[in-house]
Amino acid sequence: MKLSLASIALLAASASAFTTSPAGRVSTRLAVAPGETKASEKVVQAFADKPEEDPEFDALVKSNFPGAINNRDLATRVVELLEEKGFDPSNTLLATSLCADELARVLEDEFVSIYGNNFNLGGLSGFPFAGNTGWGAMSAHVPDNGYCLTIHGPHVGITKEGQIGKVERSGIALVDNCCGSAIAASNYLKGITDGSANINPRIQQFTDFQQGAVQELILPFGKRLARADERMRELPYALYDSQEVMVTDIVNTGKASIKQGLAVLGGIQINTAPDQLDYFHPLRFDYYDADGNLVENMLPYLR
Amino acid sequence: MKLSLASIALLAASASAFTTSPAGRVSTRLAVAPGETKASEKVVQAFADKPEEDPEFDALVKSNFPGAINNRDLATRVVELLEEKGFDPSNTLLATSLCADELARVLEDEFVSIYGNNFNLGGLSGFPFAGNTGWGAMSAHVPDNGYCLTIHGPHVGITKEGQIGKVERSGIALVDNCCGSAIAASNYLKGITDGSANINPRIQQFTDFQQGAVQELILPFGKRLARADERMRELPYALYDSQEVMVTDIVNTGKASIKQGLAVLGGIQINTAPDQLDYFHPLRFDYYDADGNLVENMLPYLR
Repeated sequence: MKLSLASIALLAASASAFTTSPAGRVSTRLAVAPGETKASEKVVQAFADKPEEDPEFDALVKSNFPGAINNRDLATRVVELLEEKGFDPSNTLLATSLCADELARVLEDEFVSIYGNNFNLGGLSGFPFAGNTGWGAMSAHVPDNGYCLTIHGPHVGITKEGQIGKVERSGIALVDNCCGSAIAASNYLKGITDGSANINPRIQQFTDFQQGAVQELILPFGKRLARADERMRELPYALYDSQEVMVTDIVNTGKASIKQGLAVLGGIQINTAPDQLDYFHPLRFDYYDADGNLVENMLPYLR
Repeated sequence: MKLSLASIALLAASASAFTTSPAGRVSTRLAVAPGETKASEKVVQAFADKPEEDPEFDALVKSNFPGAINNRDLATRVVELLEEKGFDPSNTLLATSLCADELARVLEDEFVSIYGNNFNLGGLSGFPFAGNTGWGAMSAHVPDNGYCLTIHGPHVGITKEGQIGKVERSGIALVDNCCGSAIAASNYLKGITDGSANINPRIQQFTDFQQGAVQELILPFGKRLARADERMRELPYALYDSQEVMVTDIVNTGKASIKQGLAVLGGIQINTAPDQLDYFHPLRFDYYDADGNLVENMLPYLR
């Protein structure tokens, strides 16, 4: 089914539905008491059932992805930095833009264990497809006088043997593609770069909009991927750069609507076998104040 | 930013990235042993920390949403029915198409506690925006000889006082809109029905594709909503019918790729205050066999 969106010449300003009105106020306040459980204590709980770091595999991951740290270290450092700013589990809304893949839930769940249920901005390959309206709704859900932590990025698998772009999955003998959407986009782009792509009449199909968008947004990186020593290692970084186009538009449009402060953590999620810790390569960790001004680059503290 | 998707005349068949190849096989198998913990036992654990049913509020919800059951009853019945088919936590992939709103995570998390991390097909208002490619990737992640349970639907809030379309949120004094995306679409549609909508030059904006699509797909229901006794109560049902257009296309295109069997549970997610159980009004519970044939309507067993 293909919809003629262009045939509609009217669009009510959808953000108006999220403006708040005093008429809706009630006398009871449902907030958890601030500081009830510190976020840094929750990090320990969130990783209690996770495997310990495997030094040999850790070295393998870091030789392939210099700058990557395991998710336990990531959460520990992020939470410590945000505690200094005033973020705690009772006053912080987590928003994520991560891939649809169930493996992308691993990082999400770890942070959900700390800050509570996430608003989900993401879709295939981790692009923030919930868009401006999603951001508007999300910012209305930030606790009163509270904060927002967004985590975004593509993901990539690495097997125990160090193969990039594949990963062991629980219950499946096949060591399958990760990220599938990214690899599909990479194959599409390779076809264009090589001049071997076939005409497909299902371009712009409404029921496959997200993949079409991923494949559109990665187009400028054909040469970069073709030149890469290892295409599968370069792919998530190219996708991250593609994604920044959307992320920047959405954050810049909506950043001033966040109540107290906004932290934007972007990077590459690195999925590993079920018995290993996952990893993350942070590429952006920006802090915006209540007026939406970028006031601190916290990325150096994650290195 | 508006992308000229139409300017690209090539589209590689993205599904090809998810076909499996014997080259990727490894000797280790990571599956949890089948039947290790029965799903029905996990239901009890999943709801251990949830509130008990409140008889007065239960009556209020059911008078507004006849056919709704609380999530504990829903999970209990769904899991029992699927156990008879062979679904267990080790051989089942959960796929969801629920709203981006963090309150939509409540139902999702309850089923995640039973079947493990979900593949996320959903976006604003619960539409399955990950589309055909998302379904293709998802079906490749179903455990070997395993099953898939999909849960889809819009959501709606109900306050303790019975106001529909709003809900108490933890940490926020304002009793705010729920579902925000749905209410934005409803306001847009009301403007069209009344002939009062304003021209908006940002139609088809790439960074707000999902809300544009929700507002396109709900267009046929202007009269139905205008005639409803209570617009906010009718809204999720109209959205459900809108959503079925996309769900049916995506399921029918991909249903044969599910390994052993596919259960499709659709309905209205009803969000309540943090100290109440959430509810669900099931509207579809279909079972498809390994060949993608619809072989059983299980909806009567959820009433």
